[in-house]
Amino acid sequence: MEDTLSRLVQSLRCLPGVGPKSAQRMAYYLLNNKRQKGLHLAACLDEAMRRINHCNRCNNYTDASICSICQNLNRNLNTLCIVEQPSDVSAIEQSGVYTGQYFVLMNKVSPLDGVGPKDIGLEKIEELVSTRHINEVIIALSPSVESQTTIYFIQEQLKHLAVKVSQLAHGIPSGGELEYLDSHTIGQALKNRSDLLKQLNSTPST
Amino acid sequence: MEDTLSRLVQSLRCLPGVGPKSAQRMAYYLLNNKRQKGLHLAACLDEAMRRINHCNRCNNYTDASICSICQNLNRNLNTLCIVEQPSDVSAIEQSGVYTGQYFVLMNKVSPLDGVGPKDIGLEKIEELVSTRHINEVIIALSPSVESQTTIYFIQEQLKHLAVKVSQLAHGIPSGGELEYLDSHTIGQALKNRSDLLKQLNSTPST
Repeated sequence: MEDTLSRLVQSLRCLPGVGPKSAQRMAYYLLNNKRQKGLHLAACLDEAMRRINHCNRCNNYTDASICSICQNLNRNLNTLCIVEQPSDVSAIEQSGVYTGQYFVLMNKVSPLDGVGPKDIGLEKIEELVSTRHINEVIIALSPSVESQTTIYFIQEQLKHLAVKVSQLAHGIPSGGELEYLDSHTIGQALKNRSDLLKQLNSTPST
Repeated sequence: MEDTLSRLVQSLRCLPGVGPKSAQRMAYYLLNNKRQKGLHLAACLDEAMRRINHCNRCNNYTDASICSICQNLNRNLNTLCIVEQPSDVSAIEQSGVYTGQYFVLMNKVSPLDGVGPKDIGLEKIEELVSTRHINEVIIALSPSVESQTTIYFIQEQLKHLAVKVSQLAHGIPSGGELEYLDSHTIGQALKNRSDLLKQLNSTPST
């Protein structure tokens, strides 16, 4: 194999889930008949790696100083959703249910990894909540011990402000089959069971 | 999602086997903590798409005018292996069994697709065989109707030259289980069965 080609195969392996065989397949596929697309991908990659930074307000990825979600005045300005990383913003946006603001922590409190409460921007959250008329903070973290610790510190930081703090419901995922779910999830789903009559009469607004 | 980011996600989908979810995962993965690797990949891609061309002698991919295999004088100069595409060269090289020369057809004879015998470089093969003291031509094409047609034309072209023409053995692949193999493969394996005693006494040279 030639040098340029083996360099390409080797560098494709930096992509997640791409082993030596897939990298080779990708390289030959692009060389065989997708050279223009390969060049386009190279340009997009280069541009994204250089230009994408964090939004000054919410930490989400953006190529401007403020991301398009923060700039959008048609969104609900009174709810703030706290997530761990930018990909979570995109996952929630794709659900189509939430139209409020976001704040991306970029980290969770984890003393073992040397991440303390000061490293996740608690002051910034407090400032956002107090200056921007936020009336509900929704904490949307994937369940884990670090998330629990992080939620505790966020609650502590916000408790002197008159703001509702909620977290995502824990329960059975869509398509989940009871017999294959772990017992902790089933326990959570039982504990958080919802009253069908109450559900019929109320439509929660986000 | 921002424009630069969605362009990156979209362009990653030109890679084989990469759907919308994997493309998004790749983009966020690189942005989160592999920016340098992302930039390196962009540079390698750009260089490969622009610089890699076909070897003037064997059609394999190379960034020079003659590929490193054709340049290597330590290889066996008297055997020529005919394959369909550059990735087949790399597959055969990885087997470590063959040390001769290659010729890449880049196509197979397929009248339905408008590919005639003149489009696969038969004259070039004949010229290689007659000017370079080739004494065996090994045809290594994946089994198909087009391959059979191609093999026929190569044989016709070479029959006036005193050269041995062989093709890869058809049979049971390593790790293949008889009960799951198709009947055509089992039929071929039976037809091409090898004499154990003969096999013990001879070591074929390539």
